[in-house]
Amino acid sequence: MFDQSALKEIVNNAIINLSFDIGSDRLIDPVKYVLSMGGKRMRPVLSLMACNLFSDKIDHAVIPVTGIEIFHNFTLVHDDIMDNARIRRGFPTVHTKWNINQAILSGDVMAFITNECFLQSPAHLLPRVLKVFNRAAIEVCAGQQLDMDFERATYVSQADYIRMIGLKTAALIAASLKIGAIFGGADDKDAGHLYEYGKNLGLAFQIQDDILDVFGDMKVFGKTAGGDIIEGKKTFLYVRANETGSFDQKKKLQDLYASNAFKPEDKIRMVTELYELLDVKSSSEKIVADYFKDALEHLGKVNISRERKEGLIGLTSSLAGRDQ
Amino acid sequence: MFDQSALKEIVNNAIINLSFDIGSDRLIDPVKYVLSMGGKRMRPVLSLMACNLFSDKIDHAVIPVTGIEIFHNFTLVHDDIMDNARIRRGFPTVHTKWNINQAILSGDVMAFITNECFLQSPAHLLPRVLKVFNRAAIEVCAGQQLDMDFERATYVSQADYIRMIGLKTAALIAASLKIGAIFGGADDKDAGHLYEYGKNLGLAFQIQDDILDVFGDMKVFGKTAGGDIIEGKKTFLYVRANETGSFDQKKKLQDLYASNAFKPEDKIRMVTELYELLDVKSSSEKIVADYFKDALEHLGKVNISRERKEGLIGLTSSLAGRDQ
Repeated sequence: MFDQSALKEIVNNAIINLSFDIGSDRLIDPVKYVLSMGGKRMRPVLSLMACNLFSDKIDHAVIPVTGIEIFHNFTLVHDDIMDNARIRRGFPTVHTKWNINQAILSGDVMAFITNECFLQSPAHLLPRVLKVFNRAAIEVCAGQQLDMDFERATYVSQADYIRMIGLKTAALIAASLKIGAIFGGADDKDAGHLYEYGKNLGLAFQIQDDILDVFGDMKVFGKTAGGDIIEGKKTFLYVRANETGSFDQKKKLQDLYASNAFKPEDKIRMVTELYELLDVKSSSEKIVADYFKDALEHLGKVNISRERKEGLIGLTSSLAGRDQ
Repeated sequence: MFDQSALKEIVNNAIINLSFDIGSDRLIDPVKYVLSMGGKRMRPVLSLMACNLFSDKIDHAVIPVTGIEIFHNFTLVHDDIMDNARIRRGFPTVHTKWNINQAILSGDVMAFITNECFLQSPAHLLPRVLKVFNRAAIEVCAGQQLDMDFERATYVSQADYIRMIGLKTAALIAASLKIGAIFGGADDKDAGHLYEYGKNLGLAFQIQDDILDVFGDMKVFGKTAGGDIIEGKKTFLYVRANETGSFDQKKKLQDLYASNAFKPEDKIRMVTELYELLDVKSSSEKIVADYFKDALEHLGKVNISRERKEGLIGLTSSLAGRDQ
């Protein structure tokens, strides 16, 4: 079986070898740029791990699941425009380096490069895998819509928030695992368990990201602590504090979030103190642990020897223990 | 066989009956809005006509080719952002009625609704039709890129211009016809001729649009004459005048185009006078006629009775004679 780093290299090679036979460097340079920024390649790696659960042969899945990574980067390019984000993974975002129109158009072409990758699936599998992918792609758009709606919303419940990240983040991770399983020859039941494994993993991962943004070890996490607070993002911590706090505490949090009267470091400190007072960190960590547990339960139900599952189990545990 | 208006109604019904099972009205309202603006539905109608050439049964093609119309409207939504266009078909554009972020995201989801439509193709045809569609989708993006590049270019040759509209406009019309032919059961040779028919039809159609913008009967054309001149668009007429004019005439045209010193009606009049002096209208019309002729030649080579081709021949002739 392939280990995670071998698979990441396979995906990176597939990305490097993609031929963009389009005849316009202006269109494709931003595509190459965003794909060269690196990243964990989590989605295609998980997909190939799922394939490898059921089959020693994974070659036929490599290009199609690389398409999932192209799609993911397409959403980053467009989300960065919508979020007015200037930096991504330490580099200027596409619309910052070029301009908004270029980021729209080069983003658009990535959606069809994704299709091009999927079209290299074995013909008898194409309808199934493309259907799973495409449903997720629509869900990701719906999730981004909710995320934008939440920016203007006065109140977002924990259930709303979970629904949003379920669509925006977890749906594509779930689909990646299911698609890999289909390429590996899994039956519908096993493919379904891998979908649920991915869904729970994705939810855990996103909430964990929200926690790490405030409480992570910044030397390891590689960002400035509290970025979400400064950007006024309604994260899981914020949403939870708003569910569990007293009337006065909620008012204080909302006022702090809305205020421009404080220095960034003071604002971050005061919000963090409120989170600590409300025990939001540990209660959120418990929820994350529950999602990881549910993920592993679904993985446990996949009708394959435990030995073949070691890779995914190990990855789940290392994600559960990550501090970056 | 189905006539053109029956097919348009079939497509319009398919659009109305599309179920957007996405759970976000905010995301989908702009999609419904842009699709409700009307339009000729030229691409899916041509596609169904091509299908109907070879087969009396067209039901299996209706939803997939409706996807082509969704895609076309997706490109309009994003192009209108890039072109800063406020009005489309008499209605405010999506980014004008909502905002740019909404137009980006609702546009994006249309790309995947397009896939959803194609996924309703018979499984054995999906790889072939999706490949033809997707190649065209990438070409449309490359064409829009060239169009944007041309805005800043000091000189655009006639060949450059033909290449641009070949990608931006004609590729999708060509693909629509080929896809229809495949759904109808055509062999590769006939499907290829229909592609070339569509390619030539698309080129003719676009150049004709450029001519009509300046010289069309405005009561019929429904726009203000000379809109392209005011917007500074490098149309076929402009490009051709720049190829055929003397040094002084070209300089005058470029200066006129670049100048803001004139009233719109004076600017239009002066550019039009130059076009007339250079005989640009009739020489362009001759080129349009040649493309229509080449289109009909390819249609002639399709290995089907002339009787079944009457619909497409009639449509070609009526397009060739259109003054709107």
